[in-house]
Amino acid sequence: MPDARIIEVDVYDVRFPTAAAGDGSDAINRGDYSATYIELRTDAGVPGCGLTFTNGRGNEITCAAVRALAHHVRGRTVDELFADPVAFSRSITADVQLRWLGPEKGVIHMAAGALINAVWDLRARLAGKPLWQLLAELSTEELVSTVDFRHLTDALTPDDARRLLERAEPGYEERLAVLRRDGFPAYTTSVGWLGYPDEKVRSLTREAVAAGWTAVKMKVGGSIEDDVRRAGIIRAEIGPDRLLMMDANQVWDVDQAIANMARLVAFDPYWIEEPTHADDVLGHARIARAVAEQSGGRCRVATGEVAANRVIFKQLLASGAIGVCQVDACRVAGVGEVLATLLMAAKFGVPVCPHAGGVGLCEYVQHLSIFDYLRIGGSLDGRMVEYVDHLHEHFTDPVVVRDGCYRMPTAPGYSVQLVPASIARFAYPDGPAWR
Amino acid sequence: MPDARIIEVDVYDVRFPTAAAGDGSDAINRGDYSATYIELRTDAGVPGCGLTFTNGRGNEITCAAVRALAHHVRGRTVDELFADPVAFSRSITADVQLRWLGPEKGVIHMAAGALINAVWDLRARLAGKPLWQLLAELSTEELVSTVDFRHLTDALTPDDARRLLERAEPGYEERLAVLRRDGFPAYTTSVGWLGYPDEKVRSLTREAVAAGWTAVKMKVGGSIEDDVRRAGIIRAEIGPDRLLMMDANQVWDVDQAIANMARLVAFDPYWIEEPTHADDVLGHARIARAVAEQSGGRCRVATGEVAANRVIFKQLLASGAIGVCQVDACRVAGVGEVLATLLMAAKFGVPVCPHAGGVGLCEYVQHLSIFDYLRIGGSLDGRMVEYVDHLHEHFTDPVVVRDGCYRMPTAPGYSVQLVPASIARFAYPDGPAWR
Repeated sequence: MPDARIIEVDVYDVRFPTAAAGDGSDAINRGDYSATYIELRTDAGVPGCGLTFTNGRGNEITCAAVRALAHHVRGRTVDELFADPVAFSRSITADVQLRWLGPEKGVIHMAAGALINAVWDLRARLAGKPLWQLLAELSTEELVSTVDFRHLTDALTPDDARRLLERAEPGYEERLAVLRRDGFPAYTTSVGWLGYPDEKVRSLTREAVAAGWTAVKMKVGGSIEDDVRRAGIIRAEIGPDRLLMMDANQVWDVDQAIANMARLVAFDPYWIEEPTHADDVLGHARIARAVAEQSGGRCRVATGEVAANRVIFKQLLASGAIGVCQVDACRVAGVGEVLATLLMAAKFGVPVCPHAGGVGLCEYVQHLSIFDYLRIGGSLDGRMVEYVDHLHEHFTDPVVVRDGCYRMPTAPGYSVQLVPASIARFAYPDGPAWR
Repeated sequence: MPDARIIEVDVYDVRFPTAAAGDGSDAINRGDYSATYIELRTDAGVPGCGLTFTNGRGNEITCAAVRALAHHVRGRTVDELFADPVAFSRSITADVQLRWLGPEKGVIHMAAGALINAVWDLRARLAGKPLWQLLAELSTEELVSTVDFRHLTDALTPDDARRLLERAEPGYEERLAVLRRDGFPAYTTSVGWLGYPDEKVRSLTREAVAAGWTAVKMKVGGSIEDDVRRAGIIRAEIGPDRLLMMDANQVWDVDQAIANMARLVAFDPYWIEEPTHADDVLGHARIARAVAEQSGGRCRVATGEVAANRVIFKQLLASGAIGVCQVDACRVAGVGEVLATLLMAAKFGVPVCPHAGGVGLCEYVQHLSIFDYLRIGGSLDGRMVEYVDHLHEHFTDPVVVRDGCYRMPTAPGYSVQLVPASIARFAYPDGPAWR
């Protein structure tokens, strides 16, 4: 595989004016979808592209964090960095001065993820493979060497990881054939944003059913009467067999979540997502036990889109607090930390349904779910990738979703390269869209 | 009380070149002590001062975060903001666009804390009282109205808070007299940084004993042989009756912490601080059970200096994971969130020994422990405030520590105003200390 040296880290503050339309509004977030976008300039003429999704104002903060971390990759080659993948990721996540600003959470960890993912994108481009394929074709030992097991060994050891990877070896070719034929199952979150009136929810749900979707997600966490009414509208439109998921975006207290779900289980949700504060592992565990009881075991708790790092996932998974793992491609520190999370989810028997939407998240996570199916989870049972039909036109290799499934990406890389004209137009604050 | 309108939020990037001396080095942090320093300019001629401590590089990121939040206080008056203290703090901690960058953790939450504390400092200056006194003289209802109970009500309700405050009412005047006479107990962390050679550790410990300290803290988490040897040196110097605390700064995995403590309990530590990753509530709970057993109930687990928010403290306290609560004045979102934590600690019977050191942390937290003793905890038993003798000369109202105790601050405010000449000299990157 050809090597490349990283000459410079170019950072772009890109923002799309989505707030005015109510797209993306939920119980606690109303923003202009934005991204801290990175291109690694290299001596090989091939870029490395990464991003972290943000919510409008404050994107300059994650941009500043990427600049503060950039010296860890500037001047290095891909071969050097991947000679010891854990040392590479720790150089960024455990920087002796910057670590204090997290540690391993929030702005500094999101910036770490964007930078680490950009290096993985570069590696995949140099290999001429989409990221899922690069990962899927790595040996067991290479995959294990990519995971930082620090602070995880009480739940996942290198030997555990080896066993999980070996367990999934049989059937690899068959699963690859299934994906090439059918794609990877998706669900849509475009029907029930809180900003939408009832009639828009009804018509969008009807359109989703007509377009072949078999699983849809609605936002809850407004007034409970509104939530119940909207759940009724959506369940009536999708019928009894399609899946309905609910997302509370952390607005409820623990007891409030349990009380509200006592009413909402009537609409047979497959999961309740972010029922309370994202950091509340013990609270999620209590809610999980309660909704299992309320629903006769049909409803699960899901979370992950703002779970800060692998240590939070370790606890959520080991304690039975979640029944669906919604890892985010850029909230955690890149491919290596996602890999740790996929392995822990497999160890504790929890399906992974990555968080997507935002800017570029669908592009990113399709690779992760495909890899998970091929090498770790080994099953499509209960697995779906979120899909939101926003902003894909700004990517050079956008996702392709047909008949409710993601089609396999084939272009080299991690699929988050932005179209140059979009960067120029939506650059903040000087692009024409913002002037 | 006179009111004041906030005209502008001035933000300063101030860094002290401490890394070269090895001061402040531990198992995972080696930095130049620094602060994102705020002065609120007002129409009353009185400033409001706040800061968040950082570790050198990256201080520009928290500065950017403060600037992104500043519009929430610019143009407002103190009376307006405190008419609804929870609405005021939520306007900053739950900003619909910036919340995504945490949520409520890391850079954005530290910036929120600096800004909220600056407003509290302004309020105390206008009242002509040191912050501890302003707080201690608020009515029970005013204190309760300052706490954001969202996501806490499964552990602490407003009624719980009222009962705890009423429980501590008897003896207020006597406790105040004790503090005025003796000051508040302190311990020193200056004897055993990892960067120091054995002989320096020995001589510093000897000096600490001679200076009247009855409790000292050492860093552990290097090689276990080094830790054991240094613990032996310090215990030999302080004798059997003085307290020895140990701080691992999160370097151990859960099982490794348990194994290492099996050796270190021989030196009779009062607590083991940050034995593993700060986010690992369940891990801390396991370690707490193990060290209690190893030490016959003499050793506790302590953490808090990087505990991101009140939801983490809720879990640590409710699950018995910590026996000492080390809340930090500026890691969480200011006085209101600290108050929530003090109340939860009291509810679960855990003494509060705040984290200090860094830049301005001693100045800040003395107020919190004094208030806790007067109005909530009501006891000095097991309570101490950390003390590190660094950088106090840069403050206009520095802490005064004599005979191992903090003397009561008397000047109005929260004690973190920097001397103008220090801001000018250590401003980064243009001050003379950095040019």
